[in-house]
Amino acid sequence: METVNGLKFTCQKTDEQTRARAGIIETRRGLIRTPVFMPVGTQATVKSLCPEEIESLGASIILANTYHLYLRPGCRVITRFGGLHGFMNWKKPILTDSGGFQVFSLAGLSQLGPDGYRFRSHIDGSAHVLTPEKAVAIQDDLDSDILMCLDQCLHYPARRNEAEKALELTRQWAVRCKHTWENETDQRNDLFGIVQGGMFADLRRLAVEQLLELDLPGYALGGLSVGEPKDLMYEMADLTLPLLPRDKPRYIMGVGTPEDLVELVAMGADMFDCVMPTRNARNGQLFTTSGTINIANARFKEDIRPIEPGCSCYTCRNFSRAYISHLYRAREILAHRLNTIHNLHYYLQLVKQMRIAILKGTFEQFRRSFHDKRNGSTRQ
Amino acid sequence: METVNGLKFTCQKTDEQTRARAGIIETRRGLIRTPVFMPVGTQATVKSLCPEEIESLGASIILANTYHLYLRPGCRVITRFGGLHGFMNWKKPILTDSGGFQVFSLAGLSQLGPDGYRFRSHIDGSAHVLTPEKAVAIQDDLDSDILMCLDQCLHYPARRNEAEKALELTRQWAVRCKHTWENETDQRNDLFGIVQGGMFADLRRLAVEQLLELDLPGYALGGLSVGEPKDLMYEMADLTLPLLPRDKPRYIMGVGTPEDLVELVAMGADMFDCVMPTRNARNGQLFTTSGTINIANARFKEDIRPIEPGCSCYTCRNFSRAYISHLYRAREILAHRLNTIHNLHYYLQLVKQMRIAILKGTFEQFRRSFHDKRNGSTRQ
Repeated sequence: METVNGLKFTCQKTDEQTRARAGIIETRRGLIRTPVFMPVGTQATVKSLCPEEIESLGASIILANTYHLYLRPGCRVITRFGGLHGFMNWKKPILTDSGGFQVFSLAGLSQLGPDGYRFRSHIDGSAHVLTPEKAVAIQDDLDSDILMCLDQCLHYPARRNEAEKALELTRQWAVRCKHTWENETDQRNDLFGIVQGGMFADLRRLAVEQLLELDLPGYALGGLSVGEPKDLMYEMADLTLPLLPRDKPRYIMGVGTPEDLVELVAMGADMFDCVMPTRNARNGQLFTTSGTINIANARFKEDIRPIEPGCSCYTCRNFSRAYISHLYRAREILAHRLNTIHNLHYYLQLVKQMRIAILKGTFEQFRRSFHDKRNGSTRQ
Repeated sequence: METVNGLKFTCQKTDEQTRARAGIIETRRGLIRTPVFMPVGTQATVKSLCPEEIESLGASIILANTYHLYLRPGCRVITRFGGLHGFMNWKKPILTDSGGFQVFSLAGLSQLGPDGYRFRSHIDGSAHVLTPEKAVAIQDDLDSDILMCLDQCLHYPARRNEAEKALELTRQWAVRCKHTWENETDQRNDLFGIVQGGMFADLRRLAVEQLLELDLPGYALGGLSVGEPKDLMYEMADLTLPLLPRDKPRYIMGVGTPEDLVELVAMGADMFDCVMPTRNARNGQLFTTSGTINIANARFKEDIRPIEPGCSCYTCRNFSRAYISHLYRAREILAHRLNTIHNLHYYLQLVKQMRIAILKGTFEQFRRSFHDKRNGSTRQ
């Protein structure tokens, strides 16, 4: 099949004191300015928000989960809408994962073989197979703008020989994913490779080497934030990121806290996704520049201030801690929504501020000031 | 205390073939065009919606529940915001019920005495007292625009002597509510009386007679839709509504289906509240001009049409039945929100269309056409 179009990444500026960089990813559905945070829309919805809200928060790309959408509503429904964008009425880019991580973490009786996974749906127990070819085909059906290669995930801690075997399978699958993408799709969308290798530095290096041979449009680090100590996660990212090509986007999958984003940007990461802002919102945990608060705390019951004084999000401009505390205690849907808006605003502003600081050459000051203010991570 | 301001009701037009009427209620927080439907915001939130959405749906007044708000978050919190409007950031009028109905239906170990109710909170079991004086004081603390007198509700069926006793207590309490409103508030807000009397025509007539002596700013019919046959409900409304003053708003509490609204408007009712559009939305039941559908039905799974083709609500302009069916099956919050928007739009458009028809002198045609289209109440 003929190539229609692919993404184009331009690195606009690299920080002089760190490896932080600001760039632009051009896609047929719009520009993505990096560093970028991608809100998670697992089931074709960023929980509680409508597309206009997601866009007005400043999101330029969202993530959706292939495993969930493949099982429900299924590709047949979504292709009736020409893909995910039409189905959920979101016009900007979408990145989908391969489904492998959810098979590994959610599905029942998952069996791994050289050809992929056999698993049972966590919804109805039905039997399914996920091969590298199928992972690409599903994501192409979804018309995702960025597709991810199927990879094999590891529990932490994993033994070296497990990590070696998983890496070799991940390599073979990446080759097969690329083959499918090149031969079975029109390549209007882009395929990213995933660096695995567990917590073994040499395996991570080997993973990068092998993947670079495939010359894919972008690369991700997978298998991080799976239960390992924070230092180890940073160590793996720090050694891997500089090995990735400068002219392609670098994506850290499923990470992390605001602190993680700042540190990983300093190491040269461009793209992030994480359920933390959205999931924590629904648990009443709210991010602020001076730390994280839990709205369930009794001290907020009569507090007429917004979640974060000075915050420009819709929630903070219109509602008090007391009101949100009330909604949260009363288990009102609006609590989830207002909290989600605030937390996504926080994450999206954080990456935007990092980008501005990188472009202005003040990233290191921003980083220090960020950590100083957040220190302790629980505010008054 | 001095009277600050009260509502003013103008009957603009009375239909020639029915008793339907179109009017305007002027309040210090804005105009209310009647017939009017008041979305229910029990806990200071119309479930899942933000205030801007409620307003853009065309709501000119909402209802909040005194019982719930008195227990949580409590008047002390709400008065810190100058009342409910500041607390929930809703600038248009609010009507509050007296709390009596919820004490009767929700609270534990409720005890009725000549002075009011003793009850235990359904939230934490704490003991409380609700007297006529307190019902007015709480609603005044909430700064509700329309306060309701405390009344005694009856189960259906009720014996005649129960209904007589309840009516006498309701009368005494109305006198005490009016006294409190006149002497303990500045009367910037308005107090409505409630016609009780069970399903006994002569008691309903007596209730009206007694209440009219109090010369209150508006009157409501209470104790309807409590389990009685539909015909009996209509019979009670039909005999009571014409007895109420023409120059004051007439409010039917807690009613009803779209069909009920049309029939009760034809009998001369002006104001309605009901949880049906919002609660049914969360159960997947959606109102359309050609009947009611349940989005959980399997036939909607691949249906690319909106809930109601031609509907101008946000949900129908942007999303398909297939998408909403998916969200609903996946138990996504956005399903509740999109369904709530559609159902409230339906109710608010219905009263608006009735108003237009009354003003144009075509209400009877509208009514026939409405019933013809809705007939059977379940659409294809």
